Amino acid sequence: MKLSRCHNIATMRRLARRRLPRPVFDYLEGGAEDEISLERNTAAFDEYELLPTCLRDIAEIDLGTEVLGCRLRWPVILSPTGMSRLFHHQAETAVARAAAGAGALYSLSTVATTRLEDVAAASTGPKMYQIYIFKDRGLTAEFVQRCRDAAYDALCLTVDTPIAGNRERDRVSGMTIPPRFTFKSLFSFAVHPRWWLNVLRHGGFELANVAHRVEPLARKTVSVIEYVNAQFDRRIGWRDAEWLAREWDGPLVIKGLLTAADARLAADSGASAVMVSNHGGRQLDGVPAPVDCIAPIADAVGDRLEIICDGGIRRGSHVIKALALGARACSIGRPYLYGLAAGGEAGVLRALEILRQEMENAMALLGCRRSADLGAGHLRARG
Amino acid sequence: MKLSRCHNIATMRRLARRRLPRPVFDYLEGGAEDEISLERNTAAFDEYELLPTCLRDIAEIDLGTEVLGCRLRWPVILSPTGMSRLFHHQAETAVARAAAGAGALYSLSTVATTRLEDVAAASTGPKMYQIYIFKDRGLTAEFVQRCRDAAYDALCLTVDTPIAGNRERDRVSGMTIPPRFTFKSLFSFAVHPRWWLNVLRHGGFELANVAHRVEPLARKTVSVIEYVNAQFDRRIGWRDAEWLAREWDGPLVIKGLLTAADARLAADSGASAVMVSNHGGRQLDGVPAPVDCIAPIADAVGDRLEIICDGGIRRGSHVIKALALGARACSIGRPYLYGLAAGGEAGVLRALEILRQEMENAMALLGCRRSADLGAGHLRARG
Amino acid sequence: MKLSRCHNIATMRRLARRRLPRPVFDYLEGGAEDEISLERNTAAFDEYELLPTCLRDIAEIDLGTEVLGCRLRWPVILSPTGMSRLFHHQAETAVARAAAGAGALYSLSTVATTRLEDVAAASTGPKMYQIYIFKDRGLTAEFVQRCRDAAYDALCLTVDTPIAGNRERDRVSGMTIPPRFTFKSLFSFAVHPRWWLNVLRHGGFELANVAHRVEPLARKTVSVIEYVNAQFDRRIGWRDAEWLAREWDGPLVIKGLLTAADARLAADSGASAVMVSNHGGRQLDGVPAPVDCIAPIADAVGDRLEIICDGGIRRGSHVIKALALGARACSIGRPYLYGLAAGGEAGVLRALEILRQEMENAMALLGCRRSADLGAGHLRARG
Amino acid sequence: MKLSRCHNIATMRRLARRRLPRPVFDYLEGGAEDEISLERNTAAFDEYELLPTCLRDIAEIDLGTEVLGCRLRWPVILSPTGMSRLFHHQAETAVARAAAGAGALYSLSTVATTRLEDVAAASTGPKMYQIYIFKDRGLTAEFVQRCRDAAYDALCLTVDTPIAGNRERDRVSGMTIPPRFTFKSLFSFAVHPRWWLNVLRHGGFELANVAHRVEPLARKTVSVIEYVNAQFDRRIGWRDAEWLAREWDGPLVIKGLLTAADARLAADSGASAVMVSNHGGRQLDGVPAPVDCIAPIADAVGDRLEIICDGGIRRGSHVIKALALGARACSIGRPYLYGLAAGGEAGVLRALEILRQEMENAMALLGCRRSADLGAGHLRARG
Repeated sequence: MKLSRCHNIATMRRLARRRLPRPVFDYLEGGAEDEISLERNTAAFDEYELLPTCLRDIAEIDLGTEVLGCRLRWPVILSPTGMSRLFHHQAETAVARAAAGAGALYSLSTVATTRLEDVAAASTGPKMYQIYIFKDRGLTAEFVQRCRDAAYDALCLTVDTPIAGNRERDRVSGMTIPPRFTFKSLFSFAVHPRWWLNVLRHGGFELANVAHRVEPLARKTVSVIEYVNAQFDRRIGWRDAEWLAREWDGPLVIKGLLTAADARLAADSGASAVMVSNHGGRQLDGVPAPVDCIAPIADAVGDRLEIICDGGIRRGSHVIKALALGARACSIGRPYLYGLAAGGEAGVLRALEILRQEMENAMALLGCRRSADLGAGHLRARG
Repeated sequence: MKLSRCHNIATMRRLARRRLPRPVFDYLEGGAEDEISLERNTAAFDEYELLPTCLRDIAEIDLGTEVLGCRLRWPVILSPTGMSRLFHHQAETAVARAAAGAGALYSLSTVATTRLEDVAAASTGPKMYQIYIFKDRGLTAEFVQRCRDAAYDALCLTVDTPIAGNRERDRVSGMTIPPRFTFKSLFSFAVHPRWWLNVLRHGGFELANVAHRVEPLARKTVSVIEYVNAQFDRRIGWRDAEWLAREWDGPLVIKGLLTAADARLAADSGASAVMVSNHGGRQLDGVPAPVDCIAPIADAVGDRLEIICDGGIRRGSHVIKALALGARACSIGRPYLYGLAAGGEAGVLRALEILRQEMENAMALLGCRRSADLGAGHLRARG
Repeated sequence: MKLSRCHNIATMRRLARRRLPRPVFDYLEGGAEDEISLERNTAAFDEYELLPTCLRDIAEIDLGTEVLGCRLRWPVILSPTGMSRLFHHQAETAVARAAAGAGALYSLSTVATTRLEDVAAASTGPKMYQIYIFKDRGLTAEFVQRCRDAAYDALCLTVDTPIAGNRERDRVSGMTIPPRFTFKSLFSFAVHPRWWLNVLRHGGFELANVAHRVEPLARKTVSVIEYVNAQFDRRIGWRDAEWLAREWDGPLVIKGLLTAADARLAADSGASAVMVSNHGGRQLDGVPAPVDCIAPIADAVGDRLEIICDGGIRRGSHVIKALALGARACSIGRPYLYGLAAGGEAGVLRALEILRQEMENAMALLGCRRSADLGAGHLRARG
Repeated sequence: MKLSRCHNIATMRRLARRRLPRPVFDYLEGGAEDEISLERNTAAFDEYELLPTCLRDIAEIDLGTEVLGCRLRWPVILSPTGMSRLFHHQAETAVARAAAGAGALYSLSTVATTRLEDVAAASTGPKMYQIYIFKDRGLTAEFVQRCRDAAYDALCLTVDTPIAGNRERDRVSGMTIPPRFTFKSLFSFAVHPRWWLNVLRHGGFELANVAHRVEPLARKTVSVIEYVNAQFDRRIGWRDAEWLAREWDGPLVIKGLLTAADARLAADSGASAVMVSNHGGRQLDGVPAPVDCIAPIADAVGDRLEIICDGGIRRGSHVIKALALGARACSIGRPYLYGLAAGGEAGVLRALEILRQEMENAMALLGCRRSADLGAGHLRARG
């Protein structure tokens, strides 16, 4: 199968599965525990039905919008995802370039495998950096300064990972810290020699942004991840978000909340936006799908914050539903990682192109020309 | 399996699948994207339960009705469907004749493979022509005149196709414009030699009604479809519907809307009827099933317009449910195409006979003699 | 598998399926069209949850009740079913004897294969005769007189069969009138020689109660069924029910209605009871499950009529749920036919014993001693 | 598979299934009749969605609570289960020790295979004894005295077993009283020789707590179970519960009720707590899942009684949901029996460790530090 034959995200996912050793694919794909939230994230979209309007002038569909102060060609953000080099040796640089090419906003994860300065040098498009508040506030402050120097447009504070989620696929496959290989997982690596070759040639999986903090002798991925985990502060609170907002003094999005109450706290803390998210179903299993949380959050803080919906998006029409419910934009993770695994930068571009075409097609058939025109009248609950 | 052994639409569908190359069957069968609306169109009927009345005189069931000024023996319309010669070399002529024989209203598509004048000559029954408003209003006006000359009873303006839907089965099988064959699809064509022979003998798939507009040298199906697509005007609005209503000055049905708001606009524009439809799930995926939209539309415009339900009908009892919800008639597409593929005119007749027998049987068991007696009291929401 | 190993109705069903040629089993098992009502009849019970009461004296469970003037040991009726000799050569006599042995009320069908006088002679238990109103009212009056002479306790007028239902399994298997065998069905008969031997030895399938009306030369089953069908009067109405009530002047149950409106008409016509039924899902597909119709009917006529729930019962707890909703008794069909096919009279007894034991067990665990104590407080809608 | 590879209760269940002869596993696993309540017990948890709160200090999660006067390290009770020696020769002693090690409350069943005094001698942790009110009140009084002497902390009166439930798996496999082996079940025993060896070496399945009441010559398991069954009093009522409360004069929990009405009676009778339970789906099939009954019971008696939820728990997050609905603690049965079958005391410890880790993880991700802080705000009904 070739990229050009991928006509939707589902086929791109199949291509990615074929290209990756199984434990690596499972790391990409899996969610926490019974994966109820993971599955629900996408399924929840089906419970909203689109209500088209007919005989409207749809000659020029314009999906352009402004999010976090960035002008985007369409209302899509690429979520911060860790360890992207696992999926393709071009890693974050490829994703950032594809995002810029597609007119979307790129987010770089703190646990990325490319230095934030290198990403900034490689891509001219709008960029956001995903940050944690570490025990060592100095480390966080250092990141703020580096982001400012590298001209990042926005910061994204992730708040749903005070500890790691219970991802059982990784425990079965041995993709844990430290890794623990089984006969089955070794076999899967063995039959993907191209993957191994690329890994060796491109210097492995260094967590590039934090590696300098670890003693040179221990700069293996495992040690760095252990260092990062040890740095997570389980005591942080909304005051720390306020501190970060002041420190950064620019567009700040709080990522990983699901309730109106938390969204109000985010607004009070000085954030410009909230990313409604359950971390792709990878943290606490059994929480609601983000799309089901948009309406109450929009009611509560829609006039104070931009709302971004993150999780479960596999179709252009999903973006439309989220916008009709009150979101300003959607953020996608697995769809672009499928593209990355399937074909590096070209794969990411193809994934974005698919979603964009689907969204434009759906807008036309919905009789709606601009993202901003989408509203509650375009949806109804199913049944 | 023979036609006489087909005792319901589902078995007729299986027979059709056996007779057609797989890409052709998929073109007939498929819907847009995840085919959620396609599946829902039929499944939605099951959520209404029929409430019979007992010990009523049902000696003479009379399903006769008047739709769009045409007297019909039962409240069924054959939806306009494109490219029917793909399914059987007798094509639209066979369907129109079977419809006339069964006392139903036939609709001819603009992208049919038989000239509208030839259909009119071949069939004495009530007929409707499905029209588009093209960029070139003159082309539309030309069709209006030809329909008047050929004594068509009604016009049907399709409004849910400002652009083509995203039908993924066709993209996988290569049934796109231009076609793109895969090894798999070629094999499927190869094992259906009778289908090929008939195609060759009967002059292929010329879009007979518009072919004269294309330069003679380019009169291949592909060029004609490309011409038609290029003719679609993405700027048309309700004023154009008004213009068409005046131009035609006869029974006009607006096909492809799903909301009360659009139905009101249709009434205001001078239409006589609306066909509640999502294009058989082939345009925008995720929209409601037509049967679920009847009641609100009947509430809004039931006194001003006739309401026709199009989509998902596979049983006589489905027609009854739609009528009890407020429809005047139902329109069917795939059921008669299965018949056409299974056995030409005889197959279409058999499909109509099955639905008619099922409907009469259900009317008798419901204790109801006339279509017009069906009402909200004969239904309840399930559960 | 032996009868004693059948510990529930589901295993008894499997035993019956093994003993019968497939077309015969399908005739027993099948419903109309898509079998939605057939499946729903049983599934609907699961949507009611039982609410037990604890620490109640349940030393003596007494299921006894009075239905249609008959004292029964438990609130169960054996529904009238046609052609029972197809399932076992002991036919209706065996069923009537088993019912008497189990303290349940037996109903004999007009299209039975045993004369009503012979059943009366063979069984001392309470008995009901199921009657149709034929075109020839004299034939109906003749039956009334014969029932009176044979000391039947009650009459049952079936009102949901003005015409035959559309049972597709029978059309596929050839179990139609006249039969039409396929290679597959003939094979199935061939591998059940014991079934054939018994059929030959016991005189086939004469419709014993009406056969004398047909010319001697034509007294084949097929001719008799055709005669019966020809006798059905599609014009009968509630006045005919009134006429029958006067004619019989004893306990009369109207069988086959599902709405409060029809139940009111039944009460007005002089009936003593209604049997809420959709003919085991064999007539109009898509109607509600009987258990879902009890409550509205009990609200409407609970003070004027006894309510009997017929359809879907496979567990003793199903009977309890129907009673808690307002039924006086339940009527079962397939469960005893499985028993009949599995082992004649002993099989019917086993089926009844299973249901009775299940019901007693459930009553004890519910903390309820008498059928009459069951009420709305013992149930709640699921979820 | 080894214990350390069991990362959730589902994998531990698979390990248990491999270690036990099938009839024994089915005895552990099975429920009554169609096992609707059994399956619903767990599935019902999925219909509640967790609502996390972000950026809360979760440095120190403290799950400690007080139940029935016992200080526990986390809000979990091990339900009383009969015949544990069937699953592992270490039997109840192993379970009690593991419970003590894990800081949970252990409950010993009257139909245990270890004497209550021996369990008390072996375990220093908090303990509860599950008691029945027998026909012979003297036998019950004897147990009360023995429990007092052995320093049990609480009594648990089971009220949902006035008679045995209809467990069909046991009837199929022959695990009935007396046992009735089939060829299939004997084969299953034969291929588990280690299980047999342990059974023979450790003295079989004596019901240790009641065996002394049976004549020495008849002290086989079968006779003892028959004796116990014969002792069940079907006439007991709430007055007997009052009598027991006075007799014991200590913490008493009524186990096996599902309604607010019965919970009020329990409070009036002098109980300290209710265990909302349907006996793991093993008694009356079709009753609600316990988790669905917590809220109405908490409304009715939440201020007078501690509420314990028993049934269906397979994840730490299930405990959290029950607590958020109003329960003080959860009681688990099958999860620890899987552990016992999989690896004796070590297996039970592993099962408890899994649930505990899952619960701590979920509490952290929920942003909640203490069990007592869980409330209605942490949940919403799905969809």
